[in-house]
Amino acid sequence: MSKLASVKVGVLGLGTVGCGTLDVLARNADEISRRAGRSIEVVAAAARDLSKPRAFDCSEISLTDDPYALVADSRIDIVVELIGGTEPARELVLAALANGKHVVTANKALIALHGNEIFAAAHAQGVTVAFEAAVAGGIPVIKTLREGLAGNTVQSLAGIINGTCNYMMTAMKDRAANFDEVLVEAQELGYAEADPSFDIDGVDAAHKLTILAAIAFGVPLQFENIYVEGIRDIALDDVRYAEALGYSIKHLAIAANDSSGVQLRVHPTLIPARHMLANVNGVMNAVLIRGDAVGQMMLSGAGAGAEPTASSVVADLVDVVRALTTDPGNRVPHLAFQPDALSQAPVCPMADVESAYYLRMDARDQPGVLADIARILASHEISIEAIRQQEPAAAAVTVPVVILTQRVREQAMQLAIAEMTALADIHGDIVRYRMETFA
Amino acid sequence: MSKLASVKVGVLGLGTVGCGTLDVLARNADEISRRAGRSIEVVAAAARDLSKPRAFDCSEISLTDDPYALVADSRIDIVVELIGGTEPARELVLAALANGKHVVTANKALIALHGNEIFAAAHAQGVTVAFEAAVAGGIPVIKTLREGLAGNTVQSLAGIINGTCNYMMTAMKDRAANFDEVLVEAQELGYAEADPSFDIDGVDAAHKLTILAAIAFGVPLQFENIYVEGIRDIALDDVRYAEALGYSIKHLAIAANDSSGVQLRVHPTLIPARHMLANVNGVMNAVLIRGDAVGQMMLSGAGAGAEPTASSVVADLVDVVRALTTDPGNRVPHLAFQPDALSQAPVCPMADVESAYYLRMDARDQPGVLADIARILASHEISIEAIRQQEPAAAAVTVPVVILTQRVREQAMQLAIAEMTALADIHGDIVRYRMETFA
Repeated sequence: MSKLASVKVGVLGLGTVGCGTLDVLARNADEISRRAGRSIEVVAAAARDLSKPRAFDCSEISLTDDPYALVADSRIDIVVELIGGTEPARELVLAALANGKHVVTANKALIALHGNEIFAAAHAQGVTVAFEAAVAGGIPVIKTLREGLAGNTVQSLAGIINGTCNYMMTAMKDRAANFDEVLVEAQELGYAEADPSFDIDGVDAAHKLTILAAIAFGVPLQFENIYVEGIRDIALDDVRYAEALGYSIKHLAIAANDSSGVQLRVHPTLIPARHMLANVNGVMNAVLIRGDAVGQMMLSGAGAGAEPTASSVVADLVDVVRALTTDPGNRVPHLAFQPDALSQAPVCPMADVESAYYLRMDARDQPGVLADIARILASHEISIEAIRQQEPAAAAVTVPVVILTQRVREQAMQLAIAEMTALADIHGDIVRYRMETFA
Repeated sequence: MSKLASVKVGVLGLGTVGCGTLDVLARNADEISRRAGRSIEVVAAAARDLSKPRAFDCSEISLTDDPYALVADSRIDIVVELIGGTEPARELVLAALANGKHVVTANKALIALHGNEIFAAAHAQGVTVAFEAAVAGGIPVIKTLREGLAGNTVQSLAGIINGTCNYMMTAMKDRAANFDEVLVEAQELGYAEADPSFDIDGVDAAHKLTILAAIAFGVPLQFENIYVEGIRDIALDDVRYAEALGYSIKHLAIAANDSSGVQLRVHPTLIPARHMLANVNGVMNAVLIRGDAVGQMMLSGAGAGAEPTASSVVADLVDVVRALTTDPGNRVPHLAFQPDALSQAPVCPMADVESAYYLRMDARDQPGVLADIARILASHEISIEAIRQQEPAAAAVTVPVVILTQRVREQAMQLAIAEMTALADIHGDIVRYRMETFA
């Protein structure tokens, strides 16, 4: 493995996402080359102000303040465009493509508004433009629609694809706060810009929907045809009335395709409060997809931020590297990693696995039993999270006692269970289930 | 487009999934060739009993009861293995590979137990074995882990990946039913086999976890190292006690990778009732993945059934066809569909979009107002789902009235809103939001 020369990457833009991408590439260099069969090396980066302090140590990379020099750099195989906006991003991407370089971009406005021109240029050069990070941050929704659901006629999709709006709608509902209060808070937390209109008026969601609809239905990119309403006018009263009726108001991007044509719309929408989509909260994103074969499926996760966006940027880089490197029959290794790069990590015996526990035991209803149990648990350094005596069955001499514990190694729990089972006041076996919070 | 000859496929097994796959391939033939750049043609299928009636009309396909003849058929480029079990599936897949054919399979036991041998054989021949349908039915979790999250160090995953167990745990909780009752019911509904042990004892989930862990962490397939507990002994009491404490019991497959090694375990687990994973109900599947860059993400959808499984089988076919057909720089079209195959479907004007509505208006609190509103809505054939008068603000002359309507064309709603706004007893503008159930 990795006898091939590394693939050389140049990065346009060293802001949050740029530095996040450099960090992920450096931190996961081993995992990435185990997967891609080659290492990925960032040789150059361009930023407007080179004197600015960065979140990533760029001393190993040649830096330039001339992005046009970077896209012409003959060492570079793949240009990663992370400057955002339409110009000069468009011009730089077209220049990179004209120079025969593949492009990876996180720029939704660029793809939504100039994708047709950019893809035609890439096609003419036989190179790729990859843009997973342009929609829903770290969630691989573009790959899912383009490849994972390629057998379906996609019927509709509905997405929470703007984290700012979702944060604000969640905060209004959970804390009965006004739009204006929540906006100030979102700005303080960095979830909304000083001029928030791009997010809260739905433009950003419409850019992303433009891309998703094209990929789902095989229709052209057509931002101009999207109906858009933002969240600026949503009154707290409506959030409350909707809640009382069993609904949540979410800012959704919706596309559908049926015999009457394609629907493309972004607007606040009431959805049943128990629906999975209604429970995607805060800055999280989610996309619900309905295909004729798969039925309904949903993807959810972080829709923005340096690391989740970098996750998709790097996945695109690996995709390009795999396509360049391997024969078509083995583009992606069967088990994700190159066959000669499997790790022989030891398997942790269950005795060493840590977990919280639920225990249930039948105890004689008399003084001292709980003290005995607590003493045994404490002697194995097991902390009790909750203990609850349940209603006994009629005429039973015992009562069920349920205990939730904090996290502990399984071995300690097994020893404690054996000791508790041996108590004269505990009848029968002790039931135990493991407990996880996935927080 | 599609000037290339079709790719020829042979199908082993004409059971539920086999017929579902033929149906999806036929029904979505246009979408598939628009995406893949070539059509996919099933030329032969093998089944044990050719006289059996089928859910799909196979009269255009040459049928055989000799699967060994099919895997040797020189017309065939890709063999789809849908017979399940380890033998003769293993022998047939190895024979297909030896004959230089790509293989697509939905067989988790085969991959979990014999994947290493099969992948080595494929590698030696320069052909692909694709197996998205082996885990979580229609959910593209293998593609997500192998490609979409290729930039991450995957830290852990937790899946509801056996629909039978999840159906039963959901039913026990929702209806306070005993395990034995629920099992009989699951068998009647076809969700559990006559001999249910493969599902309810966790073997099926362990096969799937074997595959997911290998792909997530780059470790070998190692079914033998998975710790497995099933759901056979779960008492309704524990389901109820857990619920009272704010938890749901789910049958989870969990894998984690940290400095202490790899954890591989399948067992009932208490998780917080409000967690997204706890709200994956019935036969639905879901996989929660934690990566160091992406954070936590979740995929959910149908984990079994003819159509969802066929969705993944056909996606794998398209993947193979794309790899065979296109130059590496353009393996997947930028917008999923071939550039010359975009549809010019018309965009539906908002006036023609159908939606349910939430309306709020300030009405003078006197007799006849609601009758006027109801009359106007009825005259536009808008059915009222709910109407609720809210508490008026102190000293207000109006009360807020909230109305939920059934689905109606937007144009009719706009006309009705204009008429209601013109009523003397309605003050100010009428607030309206669209409402969707995504049922």
